Amino acid sequence: MIIVMKPHVGSADIAGIKQVLEAKGLQAHISEGTERTIIGVVGDKTRLNQEALLMMPGVEKLVPIMAPYKLASRTFHPANTVLDIKGIKIGGQEFTQMAGPCSVESYEQLDTVARSVRACGVRILRGGAYKPRTSPYSFQGLEQEGLRMLREVADHYGMLVISEITSEIDLENAAQYIDIVQIGARNSQNFRLLSAVGRSGLPCLLKRGFAETIDELLTSTEYILSENNSQLMLCERGIRTFETATRSTLDLSAVPVLKEKTHLPVIVDPSHAAGKASLVGPLALAAAAAGADGLIIEVHPNPKCALSDAAQQLTPEQYAGLSRQVAAICQVVGRSYPAADEAALTAALAQARPQLNGVPQV
Amino acid sequence: MIIVMKPHVGSADIAGIKQVLEAKGLQAHISEGTERTIIGVVGDKTRLNQEALLMMPGVEKLVPIMAPYKLASRTFHPANTVLDIKGIKIGGQEFTQMAGPCSVESYEQLDTVARSVRACGVRILRGGAYKPRTSPYSFQGLEQEGLRMLREVADHYGMLVISEITSEIDLENAAQYIDIVQIGARNSQNFRLLSAVGRSGLPCLLKRGFAETIDELLTSTEYILSENNSQLMLCERGIRTFETATRSTLDLSAVPVLKEKTHLPVIVDPSHAAGKASLVGPLALAAAAAGADGLIIEVHPNPKCALSDAAQQLTPEQYAGLSRQVAAICQVVGRSYPAADEAALTAALAQARPQLNGVPQV
Amino acid sequence: MIIVMKPHVGSADIAGIKQVLEAKGLQAHISEGTERTIIGVVGDKTRLNQEALLMMPGVEKLVPIMAPYKLASRTFHPANTVLDIKGIKIGGQEFTQMAGPCSVESYEQLDTVARSVRACGVRILRGGAYKPRTSPYSFQGLEQEGLRMLREVADHYGMLVISEITSEIDLENAAQYIDIVQIGARNSQNFRLLSAVGRSGLPCLLKRGFAETIDELLTSTEYILSENNSQLMLCERGIRTFETATRSTLDLSAVPVLKEKTHLPVIVDPSHAAGKASLVGPLALAAAAAGADGLIIEVHPNPKCALSDAAQQLTPEQYAGLSRQVAAICQVVGRSYPAADEAALTAALAQARPQLNGVPQV
Amino acid sequence: MIIVMKPHVGSADIAGIKQVLEAKGLQAHISEGTERTIIGVVGDKTRLNQEALLMMPGVEKLVPIMAPYKLASRTFHPANTVLDIKGIKIGGQEFTQMAGPCSVESYEQLDTVARSVRACGVRILRGGAYKPRTSPYSFQGLEQEGLRMLREVADHYGMLVISEITSEIDLENAAQYIDIVQIGARNSQNFRLLSAVGRSGLPCLLKRGFAETIDELLTSTEYILSENNSQLMLCERGIRTFETATRSTLDLSAVPVLKEKTHLPVIVDPSHAAGKASLVGPLALAAAAAGADGLIIEVHPNPKCALSDAAQQLTPEQYAGLSRQVAAICQVVGRSYPAADEAALTAALAQARPQLNGVPQV
Repeated sequence: MIIVMKPHVGSADIAGIKQVLEAKGLQAHISEGTERTIIGVVGDKTRLNQEALLMMPGVEKLVPIMAPYKLASRTFHPANTVLDIKGIKIGGQEFTQMAGPCSVESYEQLDTVARSVRACGVRILRGGAYKPRTSPYSFQGLEQEGLRMLREVADHYGMLVISEITSEIDLENAAQYIDIVQIGARNSQNFRLLSAVGRSGLPCLLKRGFAETIDELLTSTEYILSENNSQLMLCERGIRTFETATRSTLDLSAVPVLKEKTHLPVIVDPSHAAGKASLVGPLALAAAAAGADGLIIEVHPNPKCALSDAAQQLTPEQYAGLSRQVAAICQVVGRSYPAADEAALTAALAQARPQLNGVPQV
Repeated sequence: MIIVMKPHVGSADIAGIKQVLEAKGLQAHISEGTERTIIGVVGDKTRLNQEALLMMPGVEKLVPIMAPYKLASRTFHPANTVLDIKGIKIGGQEFTQMAGPCSVESYEQLDTVARSVRACGVRILRGGAYKPRTSPYSFQGLEQEGLRMLREVADHYGMLVISEITSEIDLENAAQYIDIVQIGARNSQNFRLLSAVGRSGLPCLLKRGFAETIDELLTSTEYILSENNSQLMLCERGIRTFETATRSTLDLSAVPVLKEKTHLPVIVDPSHAAGKASLVGPLALAAAAAGADGLIIEVHPNPKCALSDAAQQLTPEQYAGLSRQVAAICQVVGRSYPAADEAALTAALAQARPQLNGVPQV
Repeated sequence: MIIVMKPHVGSADIAGIKQVLEAKGLQAHISEGTERTIIGVVGDKTRLNQEALLMMPGVEKLVPIMAPYKLASRTFHPANTVLDIKGIKIGGQEFTQMAGPCSVESYEQLDTVARSVRACGVRILRGGAYKPRTSPYSFQGLEQEGLRMLREVADHYGMLVISEITSEIDLENAAQYIDIVQIGARNSQNFRLLSAVGRSGLPCLLKRGFAETIDELLTSTEYILSENNSQLMLCERGIRTFETATRSTLDLSAVPVLKEKTHLPVIVDPSHAAGKASLVGPLALAAAAAGADGLIIEVHPNPKCALSDAAQQLTPEQYAGLSRQVAAICQVVGRSYPAADEAALTAALAQARPQLNGVPQV
Repeated sequence: MIIVMKPHVGSADIAGIKQVLEAKGLQAHISEGTERTIIGVVGDKTRLNQEALLMMPGVEKLVPIMAPYKLASRTFHPANTVLDIKGIKIGGQEFTQMAGPCSVESYEQLDTVARSVRACGVRILRGGAYKPRTSPYSFQGLEQEGLRMLREVADHYGMLVISEITSEIDLENAAQYIDIVQIGARNSQNFRLLSAVGRSGLPCLLKRGFAETIDELLTSTEYILSENNSQLMLCERGIRTFETATRSTLDLSAVPVLKEKTHLPVIVDPSHAAGKASLVGPLALAAAAAGADGLIIEVHPNPKCALSDAAQQLTPEQYAGLSRQVAAICQVVGRSYPAADEAALTAALAQARPQLNGVPQV
């Protein structure tokens, strides 16, 4: 860290700062410039009260040199972290697919999706049981019943379950049903929830907040990692900008930036960023091309009838087509991709197709 | 709501939509334009599944005509809501001051601040007991002990207590100590917490999220208001933009816009928006001039020693000076302002002044 | 400037940087930290090729210590710059009002506005002759004819003329009619235009761009100031954010921030920021309260008939009422405000009122 | 367009609006809702004065149904526009590569780059002659001499020239040297320049502004297209957001959104968006995967010595590697890609390599 002093600062002020730093076991490297004196602070600054330092006489500003996070930093952990959740690897050589409906709506709905995406090689089933909705009058999820269905269907197809938890109160119960806790964009800085997930030891997918910088996202991870829970992956799902043509602006630059800054796996959620099914394909391909470790995509047997996010969900057939293209992109960027079980896929799609005839309950 | 149909849409699609709308007890006003057919939807759309409607054949987009919130809307409740919390009015003719330290740090600290701001006419004491901090290694608040001190000091000076709650778990306990629950920017869309506060019946100050539009803020209020808790005020505290010279960009246009759209009181927090004490004064005056119903400002006996947000807290003396200027602005815009007790203020400032000699614990 | 080296960098790299710096007459202060070596660069860095420095072996990043602008900086010019344009002072003790229609539409329109605002104490008449419109099919301004009317009317009432110029091609001609060149938000980084205005020696009001940080705005001023044209004032007119309730988000924090960073006068344009007449008053008062040196406000004899920006223009009567309130705010913040000529104002408003009967030409 | 009336509006107001609309040859479809009356406006609204309409008594707001642009809209021109510039097609089946240095610095520099990128299949040579720089003290380009070099080198290798023009003053002269005018992000709403380019008939690449929505970009195109110049392509180059890890946030969602909304070709500039060479590759691949029609990439024989944007330029060798990967991505998304001339490439890279030994002129 650099302390930039105000112009024409007296030597007593500089001496005062030197003294407090040395009292904390830090060194002060003083450099007098033409217009400013600056002080380099050398040593472990983790528990330094920077706000107090900023208030000392003569100090103009503090300039950080190192990132504000440590456990997530590639500097201190150069090798990629590869999660191993019941034998499923995330962040390694193989690209990860997670897929499933926005909300769990019924056993049949979930089974249809799981069967078809499993045939595409998907090993992680997503599905919302607790839904944070903009309006209190919208469908809020099947809650406990949804978690139970997720577990039952996932077990049937040999899959893991990922599902969003919106309150620390639900965590202990949910741990009996799910394999990966998803923390959504609205709770990305709900530090109480982050700490609780850290203590739970459950694997976690942490989504970037709508207004969170990449450095803030990485700093938030300390709430989880510092509890000795390193089963953590990050998820880019779009940030809020002035552009209104898409629900959020998917920041795909965040993928290579995160891969430079952190050793944690990076997943992309094109469904929520775009908010519109026709954009999910192009953005999914782009994410794979940009170097993401995986995708989480919403699939519904009959999107027009979905109880939430109807506009952005793919049909099983659309997902199967996209999965083939993602596989081809993975080959270009040197990633392996699980093979589809073509026979099972044909059967699953044949079984799913009639559900498209269902009529929306407007 | 208007349904805009795709170009060259068939009459069967239009008839299909008319049918589902009428089945829900709504009317469809069909208008064939040169390039598009549009359908006006007339009736109560509250529980209409708009996402499903958007997915029907032939539909291009939905255009809302009415705001997405109802209980907070001035359209349905033209008169200002004036909160009455144990006899203290908020949102009425008198301007509201809330002040106190960022974090409760000790009984003495809190008492010094409360004594001096009470003499300036402040009737609501703020202080953080549960602090959502960017880093898990920063001071996280005195928690239960902090709540206890707030109550004791406030009672001593005849003040109300406002304090932030970050988890529904703490709510029942906190209700024994505080008069107004503050929901912070990071939890503005933590709908579980909002619902719990709604059910608790506690008066609430809801801060706008960093990336929340004014319409989204007003929509979130339905989580509280729909629980029959109408003791609600809103707080503008800055939004996230590309500008980095201030911590957030205080959106003062939000004040007159909110006053047009909603009947709820509107408070401004210049301390968190600016992040720097020298900017708090100009922004506080500007907020009062723009028509805010009140201010919430951070005051510390010795800001340079504060355990959190040291850079943005005012001294009791600075607050007293600012309060006089705010009073003058209130007069210009036709608001009353509580008179200061000048003798008590002089005594309080004299008692507070020596604390400025404390040296920061860097 | 600080050069932060990569981890584990070799001494040859450090020596190499020391060498190139010294060859440019600069000093290198080397400080070896626990995890990084940093190099303080001391001396005049104005013409240093920073991009090349960043590319040298071992360099991770450059951290600027000083602001990227010099001529506009209060550090090097602590006293406020007070412009003196034909005897009218801007940036001094007296608050500055500029007012007039969005577009010059006719001699009568301009005369009506000028007469009434002059009676409120306004000495600077605004009016658009060249209009940058979003659509090429919208009214583009009266151009040369508009400039001529501005000069004639302003001379009649003893006022200065401010008008926007959108191309360096028009500058020489415009200089015969106008006293202050306005550079609009869309051209804030049209550096060719800025340089040309600098060379012209004409007083200038430079608006902040929609996506320009305060530091970038101040850096842009070097294009004008470095041509020895110091007759420059800045204008905050709103930035682009995710909020859509207002056309732009007026960044009033920019007022005290600019007053700290620069000696140049700071004007606020609430009309364009808000885009809506009912918001202009609150924002104008807020700007004066926040410490702005002046306001530029749009006034039209009959806004509903305006050929551009109809929704945001005030009537002469509304302006007169607002002016009285701004005067009262100025008193609170210690600024003087020119007295209105009440008799002339009454006459002007009486003459203006019948024009409100004009019916919009939709 | 829909006119939304205020609550409890009288029938005279509605009749008044009906009358003015019919006087303009438009139809008014009136629909009385439970809480609001709305009026659908049917017919050609191009030259309707919407601002005046908004000001009519009883009107609350106008809700556009159709996009504010027409000539660029895919609705009225469903087939892709394929530019044909001296036989080079842009926007057709074949993916377009444009490459070259940020600034033209010397004949040798330009020749080295052109030779190597031409061997990769590039047919369009980019190079800056007029550089809009943040600081007036930075290198501003070789101007006329740079244009001359571009033409000479491009002719030698059978390439087209694209170069940025920053003022309408330079246009006539530049037309003698360049094939495609580039309008940069800072001038994206410099409507005078846009009109001049429209009238010139020169093919144009129009970059999206830092704070420009997709709809605003498309509306700006009317300034060019309405002059009967349809040789236009658009370029996504990153928008300004709160994220500072990259210079701009590349909005890759804009690619599929633009392909839905407009028939014009869409090019992506990953170099300027990222501002850092290590991010250019991932973003270029992502852009191709997302469906862009082409890329414009900065290449320099020795980036660390570049006079502008040193950090983001690729070496010829890096470009050759990237080009091979882009070709493979194109195959996945069904685009053809020009074959590299491997022998010429090997020779060009061999010749280029020694230039990497040049030492930065800090």
